[in-house]
This record gives sequence, C-alpha cells and structure tokens, in this order.
Amino acid sequence: MNKDVAPLDKPKRLGRSKRNKERTAQPAPPQAFGALDNPFPPLNGFDDTIIEEMHQSALKLLEHEGIKILHPEARRLYQSAGARVDESSEMVWIGRDIILSALKTAPKSFTLRGGNRARDITLALGKLVFQPGAAAPYATDLERGRRIGSEQDFRELVKLTQHFSCFHMMPPLVEPQDVAPEHRHYAIMDAMLTETDKVPFIYSRGSQQIEDGFEMIRLFRDISMEEFHTNPWCYTIINTNSPRILDLPMAQGLIDFARARQMSIVTPFTLMGAMAPITVAGAMMLSHAEALAAIALVQITQAGAPVCYGTFTSNVDMKSGAPAFGTPEHFRASLVAGQLARKTGLPWRCASGSAANINDIQAANETQFGLWGCLMAGATIVIHSAGWLEGGLALSYEKLITDSEVLKMVEHMCKPLSISTDDIGYDAIATMPPGGHFFGCDHTMARYQTEFYQHLVADLSNYGTWKDNGSIDTNHRATKIWKDILQQPNTLKDNAALTAKLRQFITTRIREGGAPPVS
Amino acid sequence: MNKDVAPLDKPKRLGRSKRNKERTAQPAPPQAFGALDNPFPPLNGFDDTIIEEMHQSALKLLEHEGIKILHPEARRLYQSAGARVDESSEMVWIGRDIILSALKTAPKSFTLRGGNRARDITLALGKLVFQPGAAAPYATDLERGRRIGSEQDFRELVKLTQHFSCFHMMPPLVEPQDVAPEHRHYAIMDAMLTETDKVPFIYSRGSQQIEDGFEMIRLFRDISMEEFHTNPWCYTIINTNSPRILDLPMAQGLIDFARARQMSIVTPFTLMGAMAPITVAGAMMLSHAEALAAIALVQITQAGAPVCYGTFTSNVDMKSGAPAFGTPEHFRASLVAGQLARKTGLPWRCASGSAANINDIQAANETQFGLWGCLMAGATIVIHSAGWLEGGLALSYEKLITDSEVLKMVEHMCKPLSISTDDIGYDAIATMPPGGHFFGCDHTMARYQTEFYQHLVADLSNYGTWKDNGSIDTNHRATKIWKDILQQPNTLKDNAALTAKLRQFITTRIREGGAPPVS
Repeated sequence: MNKDVAPLDKPKRLGRSKRNKERTAQPAPPQAFGALDNPFPPLNGFDDTIIEEMHQSALKLLEHEGIKILHPEARRLYQSAGARVDESSEMVWIGRDIILSALKTAPKSFTLRGGNRARDITLALGKLVFQPGAAAPYATDLERGRRIGSEQDFRELVKLTQHFSCFHMMPPLVEPQDVAPEHRHYAIMDAMLTETDKVPFIYSRGSQQIEDGFEMIRLFRDISMEEFHTNPWCYTIINTNSPRILDLPMAQGLIDFARARQMSIVTPFTLMGAMAPITVAGAMMLSHAEALAAIALVQITQAGAPVCYGTFTSNVDMKSGAPAFGTPEHFRASLVAGQLARKTGLPWRCASGSAANINDIQAANETQFGLWGCLMAGATIVIHSAGWLEGGLALSYEKLITDSEVLKMVEHMCKPLSISTDDIGYDAIATMPPGGHFFGCDHTMARYQTEFYQHLVADLSNYGTWKDNGSIDTNHRATKIWKDILQQPNTLKDNAALTAKLRQFITTRIREGGAPPVS
Repeated sequence: MNKDVAPLDKPKRLGRSKRNKERTAQPAPPQAFGALDNPFPPLNGFDDTIIEEMHQSALKLLEHEGIKILHPEARRLYQSAGARVDESSEMVWIGRDIILSALKTAPKSFTLRGGNRARDITLALGKLVFQPGAAAPYATDLERGRRIGSEQDFRELVKLTQHFSCFHMMPPLVEPQDVAPEHRHYAIMDAMLTETDKVPFIYSRGSQQIEDGFEMIRLFRDISMEEFHTNPWCYTIINTNSPRILDLPMAQGLIDFARARQMSIVTPFTLMGAMAPITVAGAMMLSHAEALAAIALVQITQAGAPVCYGTFTSNVDMKSGAPAFGTPEHFRASLVAGQLARKTGLPWRCASGSAANINDIQAANETQFGLWGCLMAGATIVIHSAGWLEGGLALSYEKLITDSEVLKMVEHMCKPLSISTDDIGYDAIATMPPGGHFFGCDHTMARYQTEFYQHLVADLSNYGTWKDNGSIDTNHRATKIWKDILQQPNTLKDNAALTAKLRQFITTRIREGGAPPVS
C-alpha cells in the first residue's frame, strides 16, 4: 500500500464543505514558495442558524439604519447603485440587493503579483498566507531598545520579512517617522521594491500617494498600464471607523484601488466592549455590516475588482479598557468571522496579536493562541502573526524571529505528505531486538536528514550544555539571528537600472513637493 | 430566537463520529469542576486506511514477533489467556484474539474518585482533563534556582496544582529526593491526601509500595475495601521499555492495579529516531503494539479493570539526539495517536511538553504547540501540560503558572455557551450613533462582569504604566502569583482525625522499614 494523503484530514474537510470542492479537483502542486493550503478543516464558533441571523441582521442594519460615508463621491457611487443618501447627515442606506450583487461580482480567487512569478500569491478561502505585524509606531529590539520607528527600522524589518518563506506578503511593518509625511510613501515603497520581491503594500492616505505608489510599482516592475490592470500588484488595508463610519481617505482608497483593479483588504477593527458591542455576536455582526458596505463600494466602482473580506475583533479588559489579544473571545470571534467570510466566499484576512509590552512568555502565548484561532477558522491571510507587541504599538525584531519558529512549524505541517507501508516500518521494528534502538538502523538512515522540522531559534541542548554555552535565553538567541540575517547580502536579481529609474522618479516627485497624506 | 449551543461546533463533531453519540443524548450538566467536554472535533493525522494498516501491523507484531515480558507471573497470565511463551528468552507472542478480547472487556468510561464527589473525574473519549508535569528530578523557580526535587517542593507543587480548577488530577510533580527511597511513597501520598482532594497518583515501584498507597487512601478516605474496589480512587502510569520490553515493576503495577480495580495508564514513550522508528507511522505503530500488550495484561488479570490508553511520541533532534517537544512531528503523532485511541475506544492520555532549559519563549511556544496537538487530537488526559521543562527533567514553578493561563483560556472555551438574538445586539447597534462607543451602554453594562475571560498572569496595561510599575516580565509576575498561592491557607475540610490516622500508619510502616522500591 502506498497512499498519497493530504497533510491533515483533508478528505474530511472537503466532505464538510462544498465551497472547497475545487480544492479536490485541482490540488496545488508542491512549491517552494506560495500560499499554503490550510490543512485544518474550518471549525465553527456558533451554530449556523446564528450565523445566518447575524448575516441577515447586518443586511438589515445597512438597509434600515445606514452607515455614515464621509466621502462625497463615494456617496454618489452608492446612490448610483440605488442606495438612499442623505447629504446633510452623510448617511447612506444600502439595500441588500446592492450588497448581494457586490458579493456576486467580487472575485473569489485571484493572484497577486510579486517581483517574479515565483513570488505570486493566490488568495482564496482554503489558502493560507502569513504576514508579520503592520503599522507599528515603535520599533524595538534588545540591542537598541524601544524607539520611534525610522526608515532604517523599516528597511531592516523588510529584509527580515523577505528572509523567511513563511511570510508571503509585505505589510507596512513600522511607521518610518524620520521621513516627512509627504515623502514617507516613497521611502516605504523604495524598501518594498528594492529589498524584497514579495507583494508590496500601499497606504490609503490620499489619491496622490496611491497614484505615486502605483507608478513606482509600474516603473520598478517594468510593466505597462495594461499589465498593471490585468492583475493586482499590490494591496491596501481599509479600516472603517467603527461603529458605522467610512472616512475620507479610506473611501478614496477603496475607489482608487478598485479603479486600478488592485486589491483592498476591508478590515473593521471592532474591539468588543469599546467601538463594538461587548458580545462576539454583536461585534462580529457590526464588523460584517461595515465590511459588506465597503466591499459594495469596491464592486460599485469597478465590478470584479479584487477585494478581501477582513476582520479584526478582540476584546478589551473591562477593568481597564485596555485591548486584549489571543484571548478566548478573540479566538471565538475568529471562528465566527470565518463563518461569515464563508458566507461571502471571498478570501479573508484575520489577525493574531499580543498586548504584551515586551517579547516574553505572555507575548508568545497570546500570539500563538490567536494564531490557532485563525488557523482553525480557515483564515486566508493571518496578519500580525509575528513581531506584534503592545496591541500593535511596537514591532519587536526578536518577536518577529520567535514567532517565525511557530509559523515555520505550521508551514512544515502544511506540506503534502506521502505515507507508505515502509513508513510504518514493520520490518524495521521486527528485526530490532527488544531493548534495541533505532539511531543507526537503515530505516532511520534513509530518512534522518529530511524527516523532521529543523528549528530556527529553539535550543534543544541539555541543561549543562546550555549553561556552558552562556545560558542564553530564546530572546537573546533571536537577537543573534536577526543580526545575522541583516548581515546577509541582498540576493535579489540585479535591479540597478530599475532602481535608478525608481529613484529618479522619487527625486522628481520630492522636488515637486511630494504628496501630503490625506486624513 | 434563543438557541442553546455547545461551545464550538459540537453538532458537526457529533455528526462526524458515531462513537460520540452518547454525548448528544446525555449532555453533561455545567459544573464548577470536573472533566471538560473537549469542544474541538477530532482531527486526523493520517488517512483512515493507513491507521487501519498500522493497527493490523501492531496486532501482527504482537502475534508474530512478540514482546519481552520480564515478569514471570505476567508471562503465566498471558499464557493462561492463550499466548505462546518462551521462558528462556522471556518472549511472549500474543494472538490478536487476546488483544481484541481485552479491548472488549476494558471499560470505555469510568469515574475516578477524588476526596469528595465534587472532585470525581469521569474519563472517556471526548472528555478533557489536564495535569501539570510529572516526575521531574529537578524543581526550579526564579527565587531559589534549579535544585534536586525535595519533599517541600513536592508539597508546594501539590498546593499549586490544587489551586487551579484547570488541573483535574494529581501527577507526581517532582521526585522528593531528600526522602529515603523506601519512605518516599509515604511523603508523596501524605501530600496528595492532606494538601489536595484531587485524584492521587501512585508509583508502580513494587507491590509493597502500591499496597501501602492503597491502604493510605482507604484510611484517609475512610472507606471499606469494598468501596475501594467499586471505583478507582487512584491511578498509576506504566511505561514500557521501548522497543518491546515490559519490565518487572511495570508488569507488577499493571497486575496489582488491575486486581484492585484501580486505574492504570499505559504509556509507551516512543521517541522517533531513538527507541522507536524515525517515522510518525513507525513510532506510533510500535507504541500501539506495546500499549495493546499492556492493556491485555490488565484485562487478563481482571476483566473490566479501568485502563487508559496512553501515548507519548515525539522526535529527537537528529543532529544531537536530543529529545524535542512541541514540534510538527509531535503534533502529528498526537493526531495519529488519537485515531489509534479511537480504535480502542478507551480514554486516552497524551502529552504536551518542552525541551527548553528555562521558562522562556521557547518553553511557552513548545508547550502550547504540543497542547494544540493534544486538543485537536481529542486527548482525554493531557499530561505535562504545565511546568514541564528540559524534556521532563525540571518542573518550573513559574511555568506552572504561565502555562495555566493557556489552560484556563481553553477551560473557558469549553464552557457551554448560549447565544441569543439579544447577543447579536441589533438594537444596541442601531441606537448607537455612528462614531459612538459601547463602553457604557445597557448592552455592555448587562454583561461586562462575566462576558470575558479574566487573566491570571497577563499584564494588559500600556507600556508607560507597565514601565512605571517596574517593567516586570511575565516570568517574574508568575513568581509573585505562586508565592501568593502558597501563602493561602489549606481550605480542605477539617481532616485532623483522618490525618492523624494516616500519619500513625506512616509512622508504623517506617518503623517496620518502609518499602524499598523495586526496579
């Protein structure tokens, strides 16, 4: 008997959901890089009837109570699709037909283009992609301490993200605050093009910054406008202002990205008990309504434009009001979000995270607990899956490394697996005398180099050896690792000509005054 | 609509497995203490056809290749059931009919008795029970450092285990090496009766120690021999000497516990690439065969005696030979073990763990990763789920606390959940103006005291506050917590008379010379 099997129980998973049927028919070939296939069957947080009631409540909320849309053109777009608009209050009431029509035209699967075809990423429910933490105002590491994020930090963190195959896309890791706001998007895009070939991110901080970003990608990727519009080459993240507001730059971002057929991720950030109801059911219903409204704007603007359903729902500590992550409520909210995402059929972004102030045991436990929620919920993109501290205020170099160990283990478990009769090893066991050992037997020797996951930062030596080697804890071992990675040369193909072109553009644009952010 | 739902997707789970059918018919009532209901549907590691081939291979291995049984009476017992025995080589060949007959008579569910009925624990597949780490030679904490385990350490760790509702049974936490080997079991049992009312453990270190243990339980619980034999009041753990040896004290323990109708947990410790084949399939096939042989001995000795299927399979680092825990291989081995356990139908003990030398990020990540393997595999008892360092050589006071945070979160997720239309909170959202907040609204105020999990050791304060409070990391916060718990008075009911009786017995037995361990 020699039977190829999917890593973890895939047949059962597929049997449970018709939506994943295409995955049986066209299994992805094994590859060195690319979105993983999530081996875990999606787990439900609530009964399906409750999810349906939440979905209907969200549709009713948009239709009857409406949402405040600060952007005049966005209001006109909604109106053009049949929504009722009140200009004085900026309220828009969106009928369910508009939402359901948007969910029909939004693509269920699409491929983001990286710097080369090996870096392309296909997003769809059932796929799995990781990103480190995004948009932290502070950077921190054990050597240089906690400081306001700089361009150097940004470039270094891009290099670290580039290094690990378990990171599939580039988030805006830290905010480079030593660069003037009107020039900052040039620094960010320079690093995301010249230091990495993974899919870059663009902030939605006004049309001019967005158009600059698109132009830099076209220049550096050396592609025509037509090629740019054929596939998404970058993405943005759109947060609503919960409850029930879509602000100016966010609406503009949705419109601009839709027109350019680039990808938006629509993520309400609904903290239970703060900007959202205290219950998982209430917070996720509100999040769902806001996401549907934004997805509709994308599809009204440009039917078929790629858009990702996004959620980020955790709870606050009711004693202090402080946000908490990696909690049971965060975990369950992820499961419920997954059920709602499957109602839309769209690729879905979820998040892990930690409220810890340093990279320590709390930080590790919260991030991993949140990660398992995302994995078991069937998230397509897990953002903030490494490095994220202080509820997103700081990005830790060491935590990026220590969380990568966990992500690399998950990545290892996602690999296709082939189990044969020889793996069961009857003969190896039968010929081994009682009390023997398998260290050097043929069955072991044939496999020992590839059978097991290879650790990144874990130290498996015994206590005496570990002590003799200086009693170095995981955090400090991680310091050595990120420093070593930053010493490694840039192995991207020679981009000197394109880099020159890119920098010429940047110089010109800075001379012209750059592009101040819109807020 | 008001619909009572199980915490996580239970209907789907039950639909997937006929074995769990009784759980729909007779749901356990909510209770303050007791085995949890595992809310996660069991996940398979291999295709069922491979599991069946492994099961058949294990049966064939016992029948054709045999197992070495060092204990003469055990060999006679196997022979009495029809096994072929060779006295000179001590080999026993066990036909599959003997194994299958044992699996028929072994009970699929039973209730262990604690110090009172509220501490009873029902074990069956689908139930979930945690234990901290067991049998460590060293104890360690940040105040007193790493030292050889003592009676004081043992008593303190028993108190800490007693404190947390997420620990359901008492393991032999550390080895109290300041007590002479022939008296040690008295010290251990004294602590496990007078400092806790949770189900105690007895080492299988010879019949005299076991009988002393049984007698101390009967004395302190104030029960007759008949009452003692009606239910299990304690348990032992039996390790085989992989590959394919059952040694003297282990076989004796199985026989003695079976005759007294007390519970044995049969756990081969099969490290892939060391005492077992390098493959998950090979290591688990060997483990399964050894466990089946031991379960058969229990049932041959006393049909119907309670016995738990046990597994502990992880891998070694092939570069150093060092054991590793919380790895992808450990995780998958747990999933496969769960499938094999479901073939037996018996309650099943699995294990988490860590190879880290101190309680740090590696330690947290490994233990939690291993835990998720056990949870998703459907383990009944998860041993070594807190405090376990150095692959079991040390038990950390701080790690017992920091791992408890994760277990408490899992415990929280196991609670039955009722979701209503009011939880979805349409009216609360509809009446909240766009941009408002839910901190003080009625929907929040009605729930804020109970809605969320309450943290044990996590610090959710912001960076400034955390720094002002002394920048205390999780590890040192854990120190304060265990010290506080050890200061709390013993709240067990007044057991003065029974304690006096127990200690009188111990004094007498020590005067008689105690009971040297058999090895």
